[in-house]
Amino acid sequence: MLPRGRPRALGAAALLLLLLLLGFLLFDGRLRRAAALDGDPGAGPGDHNRSDCGPQPPPPPKCELLHVAIVCAGHNSSRDVITLVKSMLFYRKNPLHLHLVTDAVARNILETLFHTWMVPAVRVSFYHADQLKPQVSWIPNKHYSGLYGLMKLVLPSALPAELARVIVLDTDVTFASDISELWALFAHFSDTQAIGLVENQSDWYLGNLWKNHRPWPALGRGFNTGVILLRLDRLRQAGWEQMWRLTARRELLSLPATSLADQDIFNAVIKEHPGLVQRLPCVWNVQLSDHTLAERCYSEASDLKVIHWNSPKKLRVKNKHVEFFRNFYLTFLEYDGNLLRRELFVCPSQPPPGAEQLQQALAQLDEEDPCFEFRQQQLTVHRVHVTFLPHEPPPPRPHDVTLVAQLSMDRLQMLEALCRHWPGPMSLALYLTDAEAQQFLHFVEASPVLAARQDVAYHVVYREGPLYPVNQLRNVALAQALTPYVFLSDIDFLPAYSLYDYLRASIEQLGLGSRRKAALVVPAFETLRYRFSFPHSKVELLALLDAGTLYTFRYHEWPRGHAPTDYARWREAQAPYRVQWAANYEPYVVVPRDCPRYDPRFVGFGWNKVAHIVELDAQARQARQPLLLCPTLQEYELLVLPEAFTIHLPHAPSLDISRFRSSPTYRDCLQALKDEFHQDLSRHHGAAALKYLPALQQPQSPARG
Amino acid sequence: MLPRGRPRALGAAALLLLLLLLGFLLFDGRLRRAAALDGDPGAGPGDHNRSDCGPQPPPPPKCELLHVAIVCAGHNSSRDVITLVKSMLFYRKNPLHLHLVTDAVARNILETLFHTWMVPAVRVSFYHADQLKPQVSWIPNKHYSGLYGLMKLVLPSALPAELARVIVLDTDVTFASDISELWALFAHFSDTQAIGLVENQSDWYLGNLWKNHRPWPALGRGFNTGVILLRLDRLRQAGWEQMWRLTARRELLSLPATSLADQDIFNAVIKEHPGLVQRLPCVWNVQLSDHTLAERCYSEASDLKVIHWNSPKKLRVKNKHVEFFRNFYLTFLEYDGNLLRRELFVCPSQPPPGAEQLQQALAQLDEEDPCFEFRQQQLTVHRVHVTFLPHEPPPPRPHDVTLVAQLSMDRLQMLEALCRHWPGPMSLALYLTDAEAQQFLHFVEASPVLAARQDVAYHVVYREGPLYPVNQLRNVALAQALTPYVFLSDIDFLPAYSLYDYLRASIEQLGLGSRRKAALVVPAFETLRYRFSFPHSKVELLALLDAGTLYTFRYHEWPRGHAPTDYARWREAQAPYRVQWAANYEPYVVVPRDCPRYDPRFVGFGWNKVAHIVELDAQARQARQPLLLCPTLQEYELLVLPEAFTIHLPHAPSLDISRFRSSPTYRDCLQALKDEFHQDLSRHHGAAALKYLPALQQPQSPARG
Repeated sequence: MLPRGRPRALGAAALLLLLLLLGFLLFDGRLRRAAALDGDPGAGPGDHNRSDCGPQPPPPPKCELLHVAIVCAGHNSSRDVITLVKSMLFYRKNPLHLHLVTDAVARNILETLFHTWMVPAVRVSFYHADQLKPQVSWIPNKHYSGLYGLMKLVLPSALPAELARVIVLDTDVTFASDISELWALFAHFSDTQAIGLVENQSDWYLGNLWKNHRPWPALGRGFNTGVILLRLDRLRQAGWEQMWRLTARRELLSLPATSLADQDIFNAVIKEHPGLVQRLPCVWNVQLSDHTLAERCYSEASDLKVIHWNSPKKLRVKNKHVEFFRNFYLTFLEYDGNLLRRELFVCPSQPPPGAEQLQQALAQLDEEDPCFEFRQQQLTVHRVHVTFLPHEPPPPRPHDVTLVAQLSMDRLQMLEALCRHWPGPMSLALYLTDAEAQQFLHFVEASPVLAARQDVAYHVVYREGPLYPVNQLRNVALAQALTPYVFLSDIDFLPAYSLYDYLRASIEQLGLGSRRKAALVVPAFETLRYRFSFPHSKVELLALLDAGTLYTFRYHEWPRGHAPTDYARWREAQAPYRVQWAANYEPYVVVPRDCPRYDPRFVGFGWNKVAHIVELDAQARQARQPLLLCPTLQEYELLVLPEAFTIHLPHAPSLDISRFRSSPTYRDCLQALKDEFHQDLSRHHGAAALKYLPALQQPQSPARG
Repeated sequence: MLPRGRPRALGAAALLLLLLLLGFLLFDGRLRRAAALDGDPGAGPGDHNRSDCGPQPPPPPKCELLHVAIVCAGHNSSRDVITLVKSMLFYRKNPLHLHLVTDAVARNILETLFHTWMVPAVRVSFYHADQLKPQVSWIPNKHYSGLYGLMKLVLPSALPAELARVIVLDTDVTFASDISELWALFAHFSDTQAIGLVENQSDWYLGNLWKNHRPWPALGRGFNTGVILLRLDRLRQAGWEQMWRLTARRELLSLPATSLADQDIFNAVIKEHPGLVQRLPCVWNVQLSDHTLAERCYSEASDLKVIHWNSPKKLRVKNKHVEFFRNFYLTFLEYDGNLLRRELFVCPSQPPPGAEQLQQALAQLDEEDPCFEFRQQQLTVHRVHVTFLPHEPPPPRPHDVTLVAQLSMDRLQMLEALCRHWPGPMSLALYLTDAEAQQFLHFVEASPVLAARQDVAYHVVYREGPLYPVNQLRNVALAQALTPYVFLSDIDFLPAYSLYDYLRASIEQLGLGSRRKAALVVPAFETLRYRFSFPHSKVELLALLDAGTLYTFRYHEWPRGHAPTDYARWREAQAPYRVQWAANYEPYVVVPRDCPRYDPRFVGFGWNKVAHIVELDAQARQARQPLLLCPTLQEYELLVLPEAFTIHLPHAPSLDISRFRSSPTYRDCLQALKDEFHQDLSRHHGAAALKYLPALQQPQSPARG
């Protein structure tokens, strides 16, 4: 604002003078930096190319689509990429198109994640890393990033031919600013420049780190390839494919292998063709390697833009300011990704797949409906990160069984015991916040028992909403089970030590599969003791039962949930026996993997498992929404196994059961869900569904699931 | 970078041309905005004063100390202020000095919070709102912010005379950018301007909202006072105190009261003295009131700087983009404040009080020590937010008792039952993350039972580190108890319905206080049933005990923890009886509030309560660190009350007890803690401490606390 009462012309003249002065300063800065590029020996990293001494590039046109390419393989890198993407989304103001070059593991994880994340104005394309392997596998490489590190070299041919510009990022960088500012630096490229890079913040390429240290050739300190601006169009025109291969082949005549993967080759090419490179300000790639010189950059910059954890030690790197950078990284690691679903309302965009229908369904809900919370929770699409930790799929075996269960943070302490009791594959859905997912990761890493198990798949379903989405969690775990059979358990139960072997043997002996469809019932018991000696056999179990140390499950509170199992008969049974469905029956069963899914309408406490058993019994023959029945599903006979058992350990009532008990509205809403469930059941099964009507009108089981 | 091989002069000429063009555009923008200030009728909000059309002010000198003033009163505003401060700290790059004008409640909360937060380069000064009240209480005011809203008017006299500039913020604003950019706008003030404000983004002051709507006088749409830049020096010089009082008195001759508190008076003064005001770009106060016109501002701005929730509905305001803004707000609401402890390493600053000693102590720890985690956890200073929710201190009563306990998220479901069993005051420490604290808030708001209780004080201790700091939590809850006596309980226990009354009567009848020091023992029982009918009397309790529905506490696993209570004698007792300390005794007791504190070295599972009872028994007569004994402490006799009882409900083993059981290192570390505890005990009590030696060498209790 110009001061009131002063001639405006004076202000204008002063402003012009200021601009001229500013122009001179900027121009001077450019000259000095040009000198540095030409090899001014006085210029070290941080001494030049800072963000605050260059001309500010114009911001990219509002709403311009920015392209980002990332190579990502395996479980751990997939977690890293998500943290990177969170930091990018936090600051971005433009629509983004992510180009992800992935192996099968990362693709499965990231495809599910982005599909369920539904971030507006983010498009994701996947490229098969396996198909690119032959193009780089001939290069001997010693870097920890392996073959995947080298794939950045082939992006100009791997990415769509019409794509002219892309920002290429390593998975171990974190944004501290808006990526459009980085994109805007393309405007600084001369007509012939094609690669924008930040200088290395270490002395590696100077070749004096130890005696006979022979790095690959580079201009001075060389450049770091954790953050690259690529003019793909110009590289293609310039014959990049030939160019880097020629250089690499020639260098490999005298050098045994690359030490820093793609970075060695990029630097060797640039040394030969220095006109290709545009130097970027150091703040766009603050490198926290072990012997980093980054402090020269960040101690003078007013603003850090991108932090690069380019030490194999990552967050455990020794650096006197590492605490600062680590807190920054943890911010995004623990950041609630749901909050990034915010719209770029300035830039109208196509909503992500499914988002529009979801918005419509949510908009139709009545906020005054006393069951509004239930309705909303049922519709919630939770972000899902499958195989959050490294996981080896079990080898294909025709009678193998995966234990399926779900849990939240307050049941983590069950995992070790569960691993001791169940030596086979497990598929577990965990309902966590982003921050809790990190606590969970540390918990597993700190436990030798858990860390040793590669056959347990942990799928993180991110928390959203007030009610525990028990059946949605079960369905995630069930969908990720990879064996032909699944044991549908709950996290508070410990199976008999022998159960895994016994189930496989039973499945084989009973000739299940093509010939016969059965749900095998595993009788459930419970102890009320904090510590007790787990029975090693049915004989021991029966002794504990007689001694009053064990009870049949819910014997005191809700016997009808398991009464049809017929415990008296089980005591004596020597062979599997068939039992009939009855109202409120909710046994723990082993079924084929393609069994009906759980009905996701049951959220919070109550009826979630009962409804599933009704579905099993309803002999569904058709797949119909929303019950998600499998088209080939046959009648399930319920067979109780004479030597199988599982025991429930004591715990405090869940928050949901407490709400159920204290809130009449909660109970009314559950009844409404049950009514709707039965309407759907009638619609699908006709008169046969009448059988289940009395069950739906009975009072509620006090058990959680 | 200039293109290589081209004459540099050409580039320089182009650059100059660009700058001249830029200068013209900027100048043009200024003229247009000046026209708007002069009352150009075509200019509405958003049509001018956007951040991207004005000249960028120079950033403030690096490391300049920025001053911020906030008026804050009560429990709810204190929570708001913390979210505001988190957003400010997240983006800031400068040292800050916060000037907080607070009532006694907010001061207690914020003083504790900032003291334990220990954020580098943040200084906090407090000013008594009560002392400022007389200066504004004569003004009739209808705004929801009450008297406190008006206090912004008296800041020029209330803040230190040497303070020349300050940014004044409402508690309901959220930063989306670095506050130094706002501070830099001081540079735009003319020599006479003293108040920087953003125009109102509503039509309120146009006076046409309804028939006979008579707002206070204002320039056009007037200004919003949620964000103010104040040149205190100039206001003092200009006689601000007289100025606003004169204007207010004159307007109040014809208007009944202020509708928008200070904002009405600021606007009336500015209408009279328009030369005082400097218009700030609209993005510095994006106002989300009910009928906001803010979209005109934010839909064209590339950057939002400050969001202002200036509707009484706050986050529930109706606005088509509210989801975007709400996610932004939730980001900081749920942000882990511990991460903001990051240093401004570019600006060296005095470490916060205690931080240096803490750093030294932490630096002396040996990372290879198997008990490193324990040592680190003991030293951790947790952020503490006392009285997180509205709380009424109990009226002073000589025999009143506060129930003291601690919990984490997994025990929230105990709170309602506890409230039903204990009608008296409670002081509860909750160990939560920032995000969990919000879940907890919603939990209480959704529960009629909890929402009705103003005598339960909830103190949030923010999570940090892997071990549950049980005794630090107990000490926080104990320090905040306001009655002469405390019942030191655990969250899994429900006291007899009559216990609160019975304890107060017993304290009176036994003549405790000056004459006699006693620890009153409340015998502990347990049920292993999820649901059971809580006994209404000792007779009913004994019947359940005989029926095997109840047991004495830890009867199966650890009888010695409570054996000295002598349950057999209690069955028959008609009067309180004295018992003797014995090894591992850990009864639940009622003691004076000034009892010894718990030993914070016991973190995680084990010995935390036993050590406290040893301390009580050790008849400490001197206060010494680190045991924090009270100087006046007399011998405590242990008196068991014949009608008192409390019952433990079942729950799953805690993570800590699971670790204790599975990890030999954990057990060894606990033994090391016990040894050190005994060494300290010997140092303080000499030979008397020998009595406790055998207890310290016995195996460990399996109970959590």
